[in-house]
Amino acid sequence: MPDMKQRALDYHALPTPGKLSVESSKPCATAADLALAYTPGVAEPVKAIYQDPAAAYRYTNKGNLVAVITDGTAVLGLGNVGALAGKPVMEGKAVLFKRFANIDVFDIEVTAPSIESFIETVVNIAPTFGGINLEDIAAPHCFRIERELRARLDIPVFHDDQHGTAAIIAGALLNALELQGKTLPTARIVFLGAGAAGMATARLLKAMGAQDIVLVDIAGVLHSGRDDISDYGRDLLRQTSARTLADVMPGADVFIGVSAANALPPDLLKLMAPSPVVFALANPDPEILPATAMAVRDDLIMATGRSDFPNQVNNALCFPYLFRGALDAKARQITTGMQVAAAHALAALAREEVPQAVLDAYAISELHFGRDYIIPKPFDPRLLEKVAGAVAEAARAEMAAAVA
Amino acid sequence: MPDMKQRALDYHALPTPGKLSVESSKPCATAADLALAYTPGVAEPVKAIYQDPAAAYRYTNKGNLVAVITDGTAVLGLGNVGALAGKPVMEGKAVLFKRFANIDVFDIEVTAPSIESFIETVVNIAPTFGGINLEDIAAPHCFRIERELRARLDIPVFHDDQHGTAAIIAGALLNALELQGKTLPTARIVFLGAGAAGMATARLLKAMGAQDIVLVDIAGVLHSGRDDISDYGRDLLRQTSARTLADVMPGADVFIGVSAANALPPDLLKLMAPSPVVFALANPDPEILPATAMAVRDDLIMATGRSDFPNQVNNALCFPYLFRGALDAKARQITTGMQVAAAHALAALAREEVPQAVLDAYAISELHFGRDYIIPKPFDPRLLEKVAGAVAEAARAEMAAAVA
Repeated sequence: MPDMKQRALDYHALPTPGKLSVESSKPCATAADLALAYTPGVAEPVKAIYQDPAAAYRYTNKGNLVAVITDGTAVLGLGNVGALAGKPVMEGKAVLFKRFANIDVFDIEVTAPSIESFIETVVNIAPTFGGINLEDIAAPHCFRIERELRARLDIPVFHDDQHGTAAIIAGALLNALELQGKTLPTARIVFLGAGAAGMATARLLKAMGAQDIVLVDIAGVLHSGRDDISDYGRDLLRQTSARTLADVMPGADVFIGVSAANALPPDLLKLMAPSPVVFALANPDPEILPATAMAVRDDLIMATGRSDFPNQVNNALCFPYLFRGALDAKARQITTGMQVAAAHALAALAREEVPQAVLDAYAISELHFGRDYIIPKPFDPRLLEKVAGAVAEAARAEMAAAVA
Repeated sequence: MPDMKQRALDYHALPTPGKLSVESSKPCATAADLALAYTPGVAEPVKAIYQDPAAAYRYTNKGNLVAVITDGTAVLGLGNVGALAGKPVMEGKAVLFKRFANIDVFDIEVTAPSIESFIETVVNIAPTFGGINLEDIAAPHCFRIERELRARLDIPVFHDDQHGTAAIIAGALLNALELQGKTLPTARIVFLGAGAAGMATARLLKAMGAQDIVLVDIAGVLHSGRDDISDYGRDLLRQTSARTLADVMPGADVFIGVSAANALPPDLLKLMAPSPVVFALANPDPEILPATAMAVRDDLIMATGRSDFPNQVNNALCFPYLFRGALDAKARQITTGMQVAAAHALAALAREEVPQAVLDAYAISELHFGRDYIIPKPFDPRLLEKVAGAVAEAARAEMAAAVA
């Protein structure tokens, strides 16, 4: 068997290049079919949409079509490889959207001379789509791009690296805290890493009630004296005399690493409060390996980004279902309330009995809520109904409240 | 049975909205599959493309992916209905691309505040695609858009309303002239209509040897004294004292109408040279109906845009195969030479014996080259090999000549 790298290349190249195919979803075998699909029949839905733009959701694929858009500035852990080199990742995202939530995706790789040009490009092509998933765009310009697009478009705009990651971490954390006998409002939470994922997760946890969060980046604690933090991060600065990770780890209940391999020294793990929670999410090598962490102390609950350890924080747990729920509810935005609903649905699902189908999918004999199972498995078929359903419900309730 | 309009709406709405579905072309059932399609496996093709952009043609769908892009300013005969209302037509185009040439298409509807913004948008998203098909964009701004995009992009850019139409008309005309005992260099040719299709066809016929072409638009003959013709049409102005259609029709060998219903008065048809050629291509109602024309004189050869008359000039005869040939040859442009190759291949195919499969597709017992069959039928399965093959061959020859 060829090695993993060659297998990955072969998978992408053979028998045809790439991973996506666009197919007709309607009959198109005969001239009579094409007289409906194209001229003259197609004039009827055109006129209907011209009269009422909402008819696009009835006569075109718009309502089930999401654009996965990148500028290639932060692809995987590889950095700024450019838009074109990001295409395999975006096609892969489309595969996941389809596999898990039956959502159609066009991947769009954008090379723009400026942030303004990138934003204008997305605004200009937005009529095509029912939603926009921004992907692998570097901080801090991802923040500005997302905020401007949300303000200018009337379809959901979502930056998965921020908000998808945040919802999953929040869901896993709810369960981890419960198992450790702690609560979100009283937990002392330390983030290592203050990029897209770190900042968005910190904000979501605050919205869910967390009171004591401190972020640390490569220059140290994000304290209110820092003048190197952009406008998009200033709400997360803390009034504190702490300056380093070593300053904030003693007594911490939760460590959330979204930074780099081996960034958490075991000595600092020792200083955390009893029964701590450690999410070491750097990929592929976490901030601390589970074996290393367990050797230091055995009272912790850990999660990583890896499928070969327990409690994988995997983005596929959220984005397909957040969009499914948003599209089903015809939501115009993906709100904090919808993210919170996704987090709670993920947490609740992990506490339910695991059906045989999931055990079979992972070739395991049993799986029970506990320190090694705080978050559902990506191939759990219940995710679609549970998470997308909760998101759609939240969206409908918010829209009803806005009208009332 | 519901009427045609309702059937067309139902076709678009049921059982799911729209006509397109994006599918994974690779296995994606298991976690092992997704470890190749997404992280960690996807990092390998990303790195390969980062090293060598040409690898995108090996590891992604780029090389088989065409964008069908509109601004909705000239949709069908309905005019400026806006980008969103154009979406059913663009999805229909995608259906045809797939059905006839196995090309994947993303339809992109663009709402841009200016022509510059439209052009920049297309340039910015171009890394995604192996080719760009501009569609239903009004003249004259379609000319500027196409020229700038061709200059700025290194993938084929093609405005079907111009160049696809032109190649098919040219192919049909070659056969019509042969049957009438005339030749392109000696024929007197009159165009009624000087929009995207008329101008592009006139230019292509000139490139193929036509010497005597005059265009007439709503303001009369395009003569050199006209000051209302944009820079993109001035090459087609004629030094002539003729001012009206009535001035130029006497003695004309060929009439090509790309204008409006009933625009050719039967009295003018009477004045044409013996054995004339009349292409009345306005849709759905031609410049003159075949029955009306035949009643005036019986020595003509006619074509229309309609499937219910003989000799349908149908765009599906060309664009799928022009792009198939261009993509197969990895051409960086669709050149005049490639269009000429398509025209000759279409003409040659109509002169070949018609196989049973084509007769079956149209439920007819026989079909022979002659006044009622000067252009292949859209469902002729030989088109793919013959036309795409000729286009690819022309592209390769031109690229080899450019290198030599």
